[in-house]
Amino acid sequence: MRIARFSIDGNVAFGAVEGEGTVESGGLVLDIIKGIPYTDFELSGTKVPLSKVRLLPPVLPNKVVAIGRNYAEHAKELGNEVPEVPVTFLKPTTSVIGPGDAIEYPSFSRELHHEAELAVVIGRMCREVPRERVKDVVFGYTCANDVTARDVQKREAQWARAKGFDTSCPLGPWVETDLDPADLTIQCTVNGEQRQLGRTSDMTRSIEDLVVHISEAMTLLPGDVILTGTPAGVGPLNVGDEVAVTIEGIGTLTNRVIKRG
Amino acid sequence: MRIARFSIDGNVAFGAVEGEGTVESGGLVLDIIKGIPYTDFELSGTKVPLSKVRLLPPVLPNKVVAIGRNYAEHAKELGNEVPEVPVTFLKPTTSVIGPGDAIEYPSFSRELHHEAELAVVIGRMCREVPRERVKDVVFGYTCANDVTARDVQKREAQWARAKGFDTSCPLGPWVETDLDPADLTIQCTVNGEQRQLGRTSDMTRSIEDLVVHISEAMTLLPGDVILTGTPAGVGPLNVGDEVAVTIEGIGTLTNRVIKRG
Repeated sequence: MRIARFSIDGNVAFGAVEGEGTVESGGLVLDIIKGIPYTDFELSGTKVPLSKVRLLPPVLPNKVVAIGRNYAEHAKELGNEVPEVPVTFLKPTTSVIGPGDAIEYPSFSRELHHEAELAVVIGRMCREVPRERVKDVVFGYTCANDVTARDVQKREAQWARAKGFDTSCPLGPWVETDLDPADLTIQCTVNGEQRQLGRTSDMTRSIEDLVVHISEAMTLLPGDVILTGTPAGVGPLNVGDEVAVTIEGIGTLTNRVIKRG
Repeated sequence: MRIARFSIDGNVAFGAVEGEGTVESGGLVLDIIKGIPYTDFELSGTKVPLSKVRLLPPVLPNKVVAIGRNYAEHAKELGNEVPEVPVTFLKPTTSVIGPGDAIEYPSFSRELHHEAELAVVIGRMCREVPRERVKDVVFGYTCANDVTARDVQKREAQWARAKGFDTSCPLGPWVETDLDPADLTIQCTVNGEQRQLGRTSDMTRSIEDLVVHISEAMTLLPGDVILTGTPAGVGPLNVGDEVAVTIEGIGTLTNRVIKRG
């Protein structure tokens, strides 16, 4: 099931996405959800065309945990080794935006980069998750863009500013709950031109490895998000660019880059 | 004014701390606050003895932003240079505990360290705060312990696990809203023995510098917390230890270290 979060006439709700099509092409309908999707919920049967709503970030994370250098080819393109232990960092909730929202080019950077990533959405409060239970704590998957001020990342030892500025975490367009994430194509285009192309099977650490590693340290809460690293091909974003992350079986997350106002 | 957050008979409230004394010695009373302390609020006049309540973390942060190596003597003791740009990292909200709560020794570390720090509590939603307006967005100050798995910090490039595990961010005992933070003694004891002693005037970057630097990148929300770095003298914590952070003009934050259950 594809679960979106949206606003219509000032009200916010979750809905199940039905029909064939894309956000842009139309033809999709939202069946409004009664309750919170992470627990038991029902479809209300009340349907609204997706074209009439504003899609919001599909989750409200308490935290976003992200992994660096999890695709060998990407580690190499930036001159880094594949790390012995997953590089684990946090993005603040104030960095999260939804599909169609603007990425604001930060004032303190001159080298903004896209990083297309598969995002794991947690469905249950959990800690010290054993490998074989990871499937039980994952709610679903969405597309993410780990937007990075590459120049700032190079000069600041910890990445809170380089990867945590406002609008640096687009998520969406919805959460797909029925998906095997083991071998999906993941792609990034800028103004329609392909920049990144990879397969999730090329991750150095699997989703199971990452959930075990992160939850060994910290409690994960329903709606928390794990970004699983980016494949090779990262590159610049400029004001006016339209950047799109597409993951097989999920959909496309599109955002435009604007000057910070 | 000193503002605490507490629970009594299953209800959670904020209260103004009145009277002379300490958490341990007694003599303090809480005047229950009507409303949220960051905005306009009134004291209800209903008073409860502090000894009858459980103190909670005095704020509910959306994010905790922390600064590394902000005291030259501490940078030196760990063999680090004073950085050209403040080292800025995030601690997740799941790491926050209150006064008297237990610090759980993480299973993946064998070298847990205390780091006594002055914490700044933000009172207003803000971004790109000009230096001269910093005083307007600061709500007050509290004590923090940036508990660190030092061995993990040494082997993991980013510090989300080393400094973000559950219980790694004790805050309290309350927020002092009337305080000049420029030159306060900051002290850490373990089982009553002094381990860290410094003065906030030894910070490499002032609180104004830090708020400008952080808010250049990200929106700060009411209740967000900035940890301002630790003075020299960091050292080990063991199961059974009682660690206390005392800051002049605020009070003492005490926590005991336990084995993770």
